[in-house]
Amino acid sequence: MNLITVNKALEIVVNNSENFGNEEVDFINSLGLILKENIYADRDFPPFDRVSMDGIAIAAEAFNKGQRSFKIEGIQAAGSPQLTLQNVSNCMEAMTGAVLPKNTNAVIQYELLTIENGIATINLATVKSFQNIHLKGTDKKQGDLLVKENALISAAEIGVFAIVGKSIVKVAKQPKVMIVSTGNELVEVAENPADYQIRRSNVFTMVSLLEKLHIKAETRHILDDKEVLLTKIESLLNNYDVLIFSGAVSKGKFDFIPEVLDELGVKKLFHQVKQRPGKPFWFGKKNHENILGTKVAERSRSTVFAFPGNPVSTFVNCIKYFYPWYYKSVGLNFENKQQAILSEDFYFKPEMTYFLQVKLNQIGGELWATPISGKGSGDLANLADADAFLELPDNRSNFTKGEVFPVIIYR
Amino acid sequence: MNLITVNKALEIVVNNSENFGNEEVDFINSLGLILKENIYADRDFPPFDRVSMDGIAIAAEAFNKGQRSFKIEGIQAAGSPQLTLQNVSNCMEAMTGAVLPKNTNAVIQYELLTIENGIATINLATVKSFQNIHLKGTDKKQGDLLVKENALISAAEIGVFAIVGKSIVKVAKQPKVMIVSTGNELVEVAENPADYQIRRSNVFTMVSLLEKLHIKAETRHILDDKEVLLTKIESLLNNYDVLIFSGAVSKGKFDFIPEVLDELGVKKLFHQVKQRPGKPFWFGKKNHENILGTKVAERSRSTVFAFPGNPVSTFVNCIKYFYPWYYKSVGLNFENKQQAILSEDFYFKPEMTYFLQVKLNQIGGELWATPISGKGSGDLANLADADAFLELPDNRSNFTKGEVFPVIIYR
Repeated sequence: MNLITVNKALEIVVNNSENFGNEEVDFINSLGLILKENIYADRDFPPFDRVSMDGIAIAAEAFNKGQRSFKIEGIQAAGSPQLTLQNVSNCMEAMTGAVLPKNTNAVIQYELLTIENGIATINLATVKSFQNIHLKGTDKKQGDLLVKENALISAAEIGVFAIVGKSIVKVAKQPKVMIVSTGNELVEVAENPADYQIRRSNVFTMVSLLEKLHIKAETRHILDDKEVLLTKIESLLNNYDVLIFSGAVSKGKFDFIPEVLDELGVKKLFHQVKQRPGKPFWFGKKNHENILGTKVAERSRSTVFAFPGNPVSTFVNCIKYFYPWYYKSVGLNFENKQQAILSEDFYFKPEMTYFLQVKLNQIGGELWATPISGKGSGDLANLADADAFLELPDNRSNFTKGEVFPVIIYR
Repeated sequence: MNLITVNKALEIVVNNSENFGNEEVDFINSLGLILKENIYADRDFPPFDRVSMDGIAIAAEAFNKGQRSFKIEGIQAAGSPQLTLQNVSNCMEAMTGAVLPKNTNAVIQYELLTIENGIATINLATVKSFQNIHLKGTDKKQGDLLVKENALISAAEIGVFAIVGKSIVKVAKQPKVMIVSTGNELVEVAENPADYQIRRSNVFTMVSLLEKLHIKAETRHILDDKEVLLTKIESLLNNYDVLIFSGAVSKGKFDFIPEVLDELGVKKLFHQVKQRPGKPFWFGKKNHENILGTKVAERSRSTVFAFPGNPVSTFVNCIKYFYPWYYKSVGLNFENKQQAILSEDFYFKPEMTYFLQVKLNQIGGELWATPISGKGSGDLANLADADAFLELPDNRSNFTKGEVFPVIIYR
């Protein structure tokens, strides 16, 4: 058999990433997307010498000459233009977030003051210049790079966009994805299957897996009829950046997907990977440019992931291959380096990479993986009991408690 | 000062969780929500003796009597009613996912066959009964509990809902949350601030943090004017399950939030926590029932989280306190037990819990935390460089490389 290794398959998939261009969105709608511009400080941060405690602002020199009681001249509130202390023997009440009043250089918090009849008396032996003042530009200088292009936008980045006034940000456009189920045994979720039928589930699992990447995928079901498949898939290829199939890629009499894709000009990049579950994975690409370089579709290429139809195969392949392909496509510099420690001995005979369903446990900074009971790669219900797949290498059969392996976490 | 510990504060917050009731939603819209019913197998899984390889189905007895060549009677396709092998010396082609034909009990995959002129010859020394057959009920029996009430719904659960025909699922209703900024120094994100002003950012950071919990929060800005605050907050209390404030909870002359909440009948449960950043956190509850037990608002209680206004305080408090309160409220049995290993010695003098901004690194199944450079709890831009907060306890000042501490991961 002509199987390629998991690492080789992943390399081919990632090397065939695509660029879907950029778009501008409201910053508040950018969570989970990939930033496509550098974000710089539009001014110093703090933008002014900023009072960082509620209390009084004084000239430290007055205190250092022995003065302890200061007449209150006024109040410097947050959000008000800078006031000026007229007499440096006086003080100004000053609030957190306010501009430091002119002619002052130290703030003493209320907790260390006695205030009576408009006079604040300081109960302190020493006062340092600039105490309780967050000086202009201490955190960042105008023009400093705050967030780099290609960052995955989290709540922290949303806050930074707001602070520097980026109400519109440039992000990577998401691919347009169609997820297709085939298989005449499938009925809709709300239907009652006959004895020999089951309900469609893989497409919904994948919609949810893609939703975690903030991709809104569509779904379709196509019967196992070669002519129907040819017509419908041709149209989908013209209209979507990515087609994901579930099923009909193995050796069955009605497994038409590989030949249909071939007839439609989708170039096979590999078929069958040395792994379990998920072996009959087919991956390819359709170039929509004709020989004269003219586009014949809205897009220049479509990428096709044709996963085997059993639920666990589809699930693990979607995370193992589609996720990194997507990350590379949108420019995210992400490699899954997560590893976990096997908590009990495990044996798996075939010389294939085995994606073992495990339950995770974090203890004292260490991540432990325990195989869940249950057999059969088709058992989707087991996935609800597990948290992750431990990726056991294809070059041996015995795996020992305490060994560390790559892990694909899906919760 | 009357500070309570972080653990005590968290205990009070979690003990004041609320129940927002349940609702039914389309299963495909339930990702990230909390399941509020048990999900059972509606039938056996597999629901029939299921062919798990493409090939031929035979009666193993015929093979065991020495027969190697079998005339093909027909094809059992996936999605077709069960066929019957008429002559047990013949075979039936059978596809993955199909019902096992009647009178057969073993499947031999195409790879081990030679087929010529309608005769399949088996190139194998032994055939086991039930080989390549996934027997009815092997994975789950009808009535088995597949997903327990109170599970956080991931892609795996979505797949299970589909398989058992739960097109509508019962989930926890999300709380109705209003996030309020105060502070006269704040201007909108799209505006150009004057020298003494800054842009609103905390409310958007929190909207994003709540979006990760699939809560769609609203936002409002209210000026630091006591009468305005009284009127507007009273109305918000009547209309929202949760109010989250950012700012105006410290000792400043315009920090009206605690007294306004008090005047509006919101009971203070604590104010000020022994932590940095985030110390002036105020937490309370408003009971909307009057003394006769009649509701005076749409809801019976409102919960108020009034966080201090500096960006990092708001950020860490939202994750440290609001998240567990929400989890408890919707019934999710979740406790953050994640820990990380400090990668370098660290010193922090005040006897307060310190939320140290760290960058995480997973190496060989171990999670290491490296403090990021940068000072000042107010520096939101630093959050974009970090991944998490390491929670250093309040009873000492020296923290040593290799020690393990709780960690709050926000990416």
